[in-house]
Amino acid sequence: MRVLAKELISKIGSPEEIELMGWVHRVRELGGVSFVMVRDRSGLAQAVVEGKADLSLESVVRVTGLAAANDKAPGGAELRASGVELIAGAEPDLPFPVNGDCSKIGLDVILDNRPLSLRNPRIRSIFSVQSTIIDAFSAFLRSRDFTEMKTSKLIGSGTEGGTGLFEVDYFDTKVYLAQSPQFYKQTMVASGMERVFEVAPAYRAEKHDTPRHLNEYVSMDVEMAFIDSERDLIALEKELLASIFEAVASRNAGDLAAWGATVPSPESVAAAPVIAHDEAIAIAASELERSGSSSKKAYEISPEVERLVCAWSARERGGELVFINEFPRRHRPFYTYPLNATHTMSFDAVFRGLEITTGGRRHNEYRALLDALPKFGLKAEDLADYLAVFKYGCPPHGGFAIGCERLTQKILGLANVKEASLFPRDRKRVRP
Amino acid sequence: MRVLAKELISKIGSPEEIELMGWVHRVRELGGVSFVMVRDRSGLAQAVVEGKADLSLESVVRVTGLAAANDKAPGGAELRASGVELIAGAEPDLPFPVNGDCSKIGLDVILDNRPLSLRNPRIRSIFSVQSTIIDAFSAFLRSRDFTEMKTSKLIGSGTEGGTGLFEVDYFDTKVYLAQSPQFYKQTMVASGMERVFEVAPAYRAEKHDTPRHLNEYVSMDVEMAFIDSERDLIALEKELLASIFEAVASRNAGDLAAWGATVPSPESVAAAPVIAHDEAIAIAASELERSGSSSKKAYEISPEVERLVCAWSARERGGELVFINEFPRRHRPFYTYPLNATHTMSFDAVFRGLEITTGGRRHNEYRALLDALPKFGLKAEDLADYLAVFKYGCPPHGGFAIGCERLTQKILGLANVKEASLFPRDRKRVRP
Repeated sequence: MRVLAKELISKIGSPEEIELMGWVHRVRELGGVSFVMVRDRSGLAQAVVEGKADLSLESVVRVTGLAAANDKAPGGAELRASGVELIAGAEPDLPFPVNGDCSKIGLDVILDNRPLSLRNPRIRSIFSVQSTIIDAFSAFLRSRDFTEMKTSKLIGSGTEGGTGLFEVDYFDTKVYLAQSPQFYKQTMVASGMERVFEVAPAYRAEKHDTPRHLNEYVSMDVEMAFIDSERDLIALEKELLASIFEAVASRNAGDLAAWGATVPSPESVAAAPVIAHDEAIAIAASELERSGSSSKKAYEISPEVERLVCAWSARERGGELVFINEFPRRHRPFYTYPLNATHTMSFDAVFRGLEITTGGRRHNEYRALLDALPKFGLKAEDLADYLAVFKYGCPPHGGFAIGCERLTQKILGLANVKEASLFPRDRKRVRP
Repeated sequence: MRVLAKELISKIGSPEEIELMGWVHRVRELGGVSFVMVRDRSGLAQAVVEGKADLSLESVVRVTGLAAANDKAPGGAELRASGVELIAGAEPDLPFPVNGDCSKIGLDVILDNRPLSLRNPRIRSIFSVQSTIIDAFSAFLRSRDFTEMKTSKLIGSGTEGGTGLFEVDYFDTKVYLAQSPQFYKQTMVASGMERVFEVAPAYRAEKHDTPRHLNEYVSMDVEMAFIDSERDLIALEKELLASIFEAVASRNAGDLAAWGATVPSPESVAAAPVIAHDEAIAIAASELERSGSSSKKAYEISPEVERLVCAWSARERGGELVFINEFPRRHRPFYTYPLNATHTMSFDAVFRGLEITTGGRRHNEYRALLDALPKFGLKAEDLADYLAVFKYGCPPHGGFAIGCERLTQKILGLANVKEASLFPRDRKRVRP
């Protein structure tokens, strides 16, 4: 009977032979016996084999034997092997040590060799955390009566304009990879579902190559009807993030420990400040002055301003999450609901210095939307499908999106967002 | 305070005014009062308004008043309105009656007007069921220690050959939209996660235009390590499908009723027969003979053969689900694990006459895979990234994929799979 590494301790003293199955993580020979560390989906377990083990690292094996207590072995138990069977041998030319310290392997080597680097327990733990994030996101929203939707990623044209889109040869025509499900989530809200979410790929054909950009990322989108302003969305996102952080803390304690990471407490998330855009700029300016960089000025929300506002908030308010709202109209897309002549009902969430969310209330009145278009250089006839959503009664609504890889990155403190994408795509990387 | 339509009955007798918010589904004037049917995400509720309501259908309204019992109203309660506020008016030129019988609206009209047709309660119910399917799929697999993964949909080349792929302009190069996460799910199994799943779009650039094909669909993929044969996968899929059917039956009873649909019992799923490919062909041949079509012959598994085998099984075994296994090697991709010289450890699942799953055990030994390539006209150098998965110890494994739209279609008895896709893409349809 197969027993997982983490279950070995429960079999101590049992007279029945058990089987460990997994990968040869490490082999140490000492005094006529071999200590074979076997890695499976649950962790590591030590098997003690008589004589020389003669197994190449990363081979897949089945080790049979009896469990025995050993305080020095992982989990406090080891397997005294009566037999070792090679299930699938590994070639002996590993390009880097899978069982080593992954912080010593360059990012390009990690990504070029994804099938192998994912075997490193610390690297793999990133994606255990990500799996929890997606589950907790979905479970929280379902508990609030949201419906999961799956929308097309092939669109005839971009709602937010044609720049930054990847073009696809589609039979006899051209289509584009969707930048976001913006149009579709508004459709579903107006259809009467009222509350929808989606977890799906999104595409940005931007030439950035920074530690915070991906050309393909997992967008966790939310949209809901019958809100008054972006403050309803901020309140929802606070509860949502607190629920995600709690799930990660309880299910991924070992993964957090592997990265020396912690998640914010529910109290600190609930207390996260909401700062108006213009005030955030002023805070960033005074932070710059404080740090003696008074020659620099802050004019709009940039990565540096996000870091400065987070630093200020951490010092003055004691948290790691900040919401910035009321962005100027010129900084937001045409569908953003106005607060007044100059500002909008919009917001960003900044977590540990990085923007992880953009959102806001949207225009919901057909005629107001028609009026807004010319100011953004847009024509009604180019947006006929989008406008159809509003023509026949659309409630006040809004939503936001959380970048799944960015949230993963900031939870674990990864230097580069690409580390939080299984198979990242950037300007030069299209494989593996 | 807002009250949902389904909650109205709980407010009967309460002295506090409540609010219904939603869409004007229908208005009937009678004896000086208007009966306004308000539709929200929970269903329909009747509001009784003094005088003429003067509301265009589909307008979004807020109706204030007191709840009262009325056996003839939906849910046994109605709202005696003290006030009606128009939140967002609908233009009066609805292209078809949203509140009508959707079976009388043509499929093209439904799909061309998706933002509006989704408001029809019966059409919307399709996607409530789909949301449950995705949740139940994920929840079942998580309960069995599977990890959710999100992989790239942009690939350098097709694992299964270059035909049927959509080409994407990617900066200075070309990439393709992934047909399946086959390569990636095998990578994750071999990485030590052992058990993974993904729910994501998949693309087929096939020119079919049939009631069973989509060019973009939601693939629900599963892969697991340490299996002996495809029979382990069939056992897993039986439990998985039974769990999905149970979730739909308990959460979507009203949606099933709207379509006159039922789901198979857990017992009938557990008892679903597993029929070898060659036997299935023989069964189809004898079914043809039985029906007097002896001039036709069955040579391989086709849509017609799937229907015939299901018909036979329903009659002889009393179920709606059939597994067909042991497909000939020539009908399966190069990575399929051989059963013997001529057949493979592969299977399809056929539900109510339609193939909803393809799966099988995969080759896991590097050298066996290298040997298999030339027989399929493939070269190792073209598959370097794929082969890297196997070079360093890959356990026996296999998996399968369920087409989400097909499963939705067959649960509800929809005539065309496009009805089960929010924004379907076919050869001619790229909008809305």
